[in-house]
Amino acid sequence: MSGVLAGKVFASCAANGDTLDGMSYKVPFKDIKFSVHNVLDAVNQLQAAGVEIDQDTFDSVLQGYGEFMEQAVAPINLEADLEGAKWADGEVTTPAGYKKAWEEFTEAGWNTIGHDEEFGGGGMPYTLSNAANEASAAASSAWSMYSGLTNGAIKALSSVGSDELKEKFVPKMVSGEWTGTMCLTEPQAGTDLGLLTTKAQPNDDGSYSISGNKIFISAGQHDFTDNIIHLVLARTPGAPEGTRGISLFVVPRNEVADDGSVGENNGVHCDGIEHKMGIHGSPTCQIRFENARGWLVGEENRGLPAMFVMMNHARIGTAMQGLSIADASSQLALDYSRERIQSKAPKSVRGDRPKGSDPIILQPDVRRMLLEQKAWVGGYRMLMHWITLQYDIAHGPNTSEEDRAKAEGFVELLTPIGKGFGTDVAVDVASLGVQIHGGMGYIHETGAELYLRDARILPIYEGTNGVQALDLIGRKIAGDGGERLKSFLALVRDNGSSAPEGFTSYGETLVGYADRLEKSVMESFSQAGENDVRVLAAATPVLRALGYLSFAHFWLLAAKAGLESSDADAEVAAKHVSLAKFFFEWLLPQAEPNFDFALASTDILMDDAAIAY
Amino acid sequence: MSGVLAGKVFASCAANGDTLDGMSYKVPFKDIKFSVHNVLDAVNQLQAAGVEIDQDTFDSVLQGYGEFMEQAVAPINLEADLEGAKWADGEVTTPAGYKKAWEEFTEAGWNTIGHDEEFGGGGMPYTLSNAANEASAAASSAWSMYSGLTNGAIKALSSVGSDELKEKFVPKMVSGEWTGTMCLTEPQAGTDLGLLTTKAQPNDDGSYSISGNKIFISAGQHDFTDNIIHLVLARTPGAPEGTRGISLFVVPRNEVADDGSVGENNGVHCDGIEHKMGIHGSPTCQIRFENARGWLVGEENRGLPAMFVMMNHARIGTAMQGLSIADASSQLALDYSRERIQSKAPKSVRGDRPKGSDPIILQPDVRRMLLEQKAWVGGYRMLMHWITLQYDIAHGPNTSEEDRAKAEGFVELLTPIGKGFGTDVAVDVASLGVQIHGGMGYIHETGAELYLRDARILPIYEGTNGVQALDLIGRKIAGDGGERLKSFLALVRDNGSSAPEGFTSYGETLVGYADRLEKSVMESFSQAGENDVRVLAAATPVLRALGYLSFAHFWLLAAKAGLESSDADAEVAAKHVSLAKFFFEWLLPQAEPNFDFALASTDILMDDAAIAY
Repeated sequence: MSGVLAGKVFASCAANGDTLDGMSYKVPFKDIKFSVHNVLDAVNQLQAAGVEIDQDTFDSVLQGYGEFMEQAVAPINLEADLEGAKWADGEVTTPAGYKKAWEEFTEAGWNTIGHDEEFGGGGMPYTLSNAANEASAAASSAWSMYSGLTNGAIKALSSVGSDELKEKFVPKMVSGEWTGTMCLTEPQAGTDLGLLTTKAQPNDDGSYSISGNKIFISAGQHDFTDNIIHLVLARTPGAPEGTRGISLFVVPRNEVADDGSVGENNGVHCDGIEHKMGIHGSPTCQIRFENARGWLVGEENRGLPAMFVMMNHARIGTAMQGLSIADASSQLALDYSRERIQSKAPKSVRGDRPKGSDPIILQPDVRRMLLEQKAWVGGYRMLMHWITLQYDIAHGPNTSEEDRAKAEGFVELLTPIGKGFGTDVAVDVASLGVQIHGGMGYIHETGAELYLRDARILPIYEGTNGVQALDLIGRKIAGDGGERLKSFLALVRDNGSSAPEGFTSYGETLVGYADRLEKSVMESFSQAGENDVRVLAAATPVLRALGYLSFAHFWLLAAKAGLESSDADAEVAAKHVSLAKFFFEWLLPQAEPNFDFALASTDILMDDAAIAY
Repeated sequence: MSGVLAGKVFASCAANGDTLDGMSYKVPFKDIKFSVHNVLDAVNQLQAAGVEIDQDTFDSVLQGYGEFMEQAVAPINLEADLEGAKWADGEVTTPAGYKKAWEEFTEAGWNTIGHDEEFGGGGMPYTLSNAANEASAAASSAWSMYSGLTNGAIKALSSVGSDELKEKFVPKMVSGEWTGTMCLTEPQAGTDLGLLTTKAQPNDDGSYSISGNKIFISAGQHDFTDNIIHLVLARTPGAPEGTRGISLFVVPRNEVADDGSVGENNGVHCDGIEHKMGIHGSPTCQIRFENARGWLVGEENRGLPAMFVMMNHARIGTAMQGLSIADASSQLALDYSRERIQSKAPKSVRGDRPKGSDPIILQPDVRRMLLEQKAWVGGYRMLMHWITLQYDIAHGPNTSEEDRAKAEGFVELLTPIGKGFGTDVAVDVASLGVQIHGGMGYIHETGAELYLRDARILPIYEGTNGVQALDLIGRKIAGDGGERLKSFLALVRDNGSSAPEGFTSYGETLVGYADRLEKSVMESFSQAGENDVRVLAAATPVLRALGYLSFAHFWLLAAKAGLESSDADAEVAAKHVSLAKFFFEWLLPQAEPNFDFALASTDILMDDAAIAY
């Protein structure tokens, strides 16, 4: 806590001897482990699927990664936001401490944990690398993007690239010697990638000359490494119009010789960076490719599916940023509410406290906000752990074809929930964090408003949340006639109908919501023939309904685990049982209106009279 | 639109020949007049109450004030945010253009319109000055605060100050030669003003020596004027503890001689300004009073009620900032959505448009967001117009004692709705404005994110929205045994049961919600004896339920006016009818969960297990 004012405010409220030092983020190891081990029994499920992992390894990697983020990254977050990344003459200088943290991070090998051993990675399951990754964006959302984008680029290259390209680029990206980007957006082509015009002209040697302007390229230029590997969408000559004529290329910023040494600039220029609301430490670059030499990744005109390997990874990463920021915001607000003395609490709550004002955590309305934060964060975490667990199961050598398809379907169905619903939740949670701080929440030195500014990009990038909703209802639900959805709802109903004592009525509510969701979705589909707006208009309400429902599903699982796990930390178990009740009583009813909205009048929605002048 | 990138994006989508120039806010004169004249019939009601005003005067003052804001203030808003107010050696420099705009504003006399003629004001009703004021914060929320605070200080001084103090300070504040502030908060005393420690030592000449440190003082120091008049809460020697020992003082920054000339510094020092999330053009000052000479305003130890004259004014002003920012955000998003070409719209919507992508306004999910903005803004506007109309009726010479009490009750009941519900709505609307812009919404030059940052303080200052909710359920509802609430609900039920054709089922819904709200409130009161958390926990849900209900009430009135007014602009009338339907179908169902929350388990809410470690 740097500022004079915050010092004064906190000094005035250090009633119980604790001190606050602002943004002292702590990795919630106990909560993470409760979710992974007690709620989801992940290690056993991974082992059954033939994925090599044991609980000790899991916990120790989690611990090491998390401690690194706490100690090396979290402390530089607030100052870095003020300083921001700076552009001059095509070069980008990152904020103080960023490069050093990157060097320490990569030297310790923490960025390698989730990557294949053949490229120098740790070969850990996604469930683990992802669970560990929570600490990264919580420590600094802006800083975490450099590794997040690099990881996505590695995934895309190693899934669809040729052996030669993999060998040339992937090991140095895994080691952190180079970083990666995804170059999709152009000024006229954002959501609508079919409009992009960047050109790829074939050269005689099998490479391509790439020319065009890309915008919104995160970590497109920086001072961490001596090369940056761009994955670029572009069109070859005579390619079909629209998305069917897009190919994916790998384009290093600097030339790479056969021995791997880095040469001259390869015609890749950073023309500027954006002045943004948040993630100031992450340069959002305008990148100009001028006859830059690149190589085709995967097949010609199949660039979009190839890029979607990276995009799906990035969507889960974005969802994780949401969880991370939400938790960090919640921690900060909880600390503050325990320390800040202001007004008297109700008698039944204050008990025999001495005369005078009380910590604001004893105020019911403040408690409501704190618990909303906690209940969102806890549900969000279990959802994300479960998605990545399903990913690992789908890829496990012992998984049957049937189970593989099912697990893959869950990943597909719930990724838009994590990204499209979760990041809206993250913005709300960060906004609550500001509100709990009162006036202190609006000033920079406290840190609460930084979380809100950093969170606000999450519903936008990697496909806006509106696009996530369309992906959900179109590709993911309608795409297989509702099979993935029904398969998930079957899990939910099983869970709801086997609720533990004290939770049976919540279980019934859950089953009821599952039924209503299925009905709303099917009803909207049945109207699609005569009304081509219906399903599009139902997308966001259905996303939200399934979002609430899936959070409630995991909270009910958490309540079971909390009541029944013999090896769980008692305090953590009790916390989860209590928060599960809170979610069902104080949050889940908000799902209700979405069933109405899913079928509300599209004539009214599309009436042009409402938007006259 | 200054930036290179925005130029590129907008150039790429100027399909219909229009151009966008970023933040080109236009005062919605037609909407304002429809609300005032057609929906609320305000001029006739004012005249019946004996308030002097006619429609021509109303419209021409509205027009002149609005045009000033459009032309002199709106164009400097975006740049001023980047520059911000700057502090050095106790002085504050305001952003480029701020001082000039203030001089033009006060020279034209626009700041005087709502003030009493005896102090040089225009003597216009609050209904008018407030309606006009919408343009001020829409043009620049930060700039509008200088006049907003000054107006509040004038109200407080002229209501409770002695004739001598009024004569000395008020005319120069009305003319804009001096500005005013409210100095309440101290590091340890925010919501809990009873904890404040600033001291007022009586001098022999009847004045007081004021010493203490205040924080969060908006416009506490600046370069507009040669004096600043602070209204300061402080304690006299031996004053009772808590809020019963607080007195109000007027403390000029500089000494004022008997002839009104400005002398030396009066022991009032600005020690710094905060680095905030938004309203960067408004300096949020730390003010140190060091034996500053001040005068008691009103009675000793009755400072809080005196300050509440200013506070109530400031709460309506804050609510208006919410409306203003929400409308400005909505205008920007609507313009962008008409210009931005991206993806194909559904066939039934795109009609015979040429092959290719369409403006995003034709996408159902974008339309939903745009209409949510519009429906919130329109309801918000009518609510605020009605509150100030009731204020004028309460103060009208021809108003009967019974009607006066009723009108005053409405102001008291609905001020926390305007402030406590409306500003939450404003944040949501501004966030939708960011979302509609996609990636462009997150970068500064577009302007959308500025509205969100500026809006985010509104639920915090002038009493957090949690405090507004407590004020509503405690003072405003429980305080008179529910009479004010019942009186308002009677209006709502009358309105609902006389709904025009096409709106009868909406009318029934409205009556149903009124009944449920009354029931929830009364049920929570009936539990108060055995559960002292119940009513405190119900405060925010009840605020939200009444918020939705009151917005719906005004939308139903608007639909009536739109269908029945013979002299209304046809397009504006049709727009209001259409948006009224949208509000009832697509927004009002969100009120639903609040009835559950109002009576949800307080044991779960206050369970300490949920906030363990």
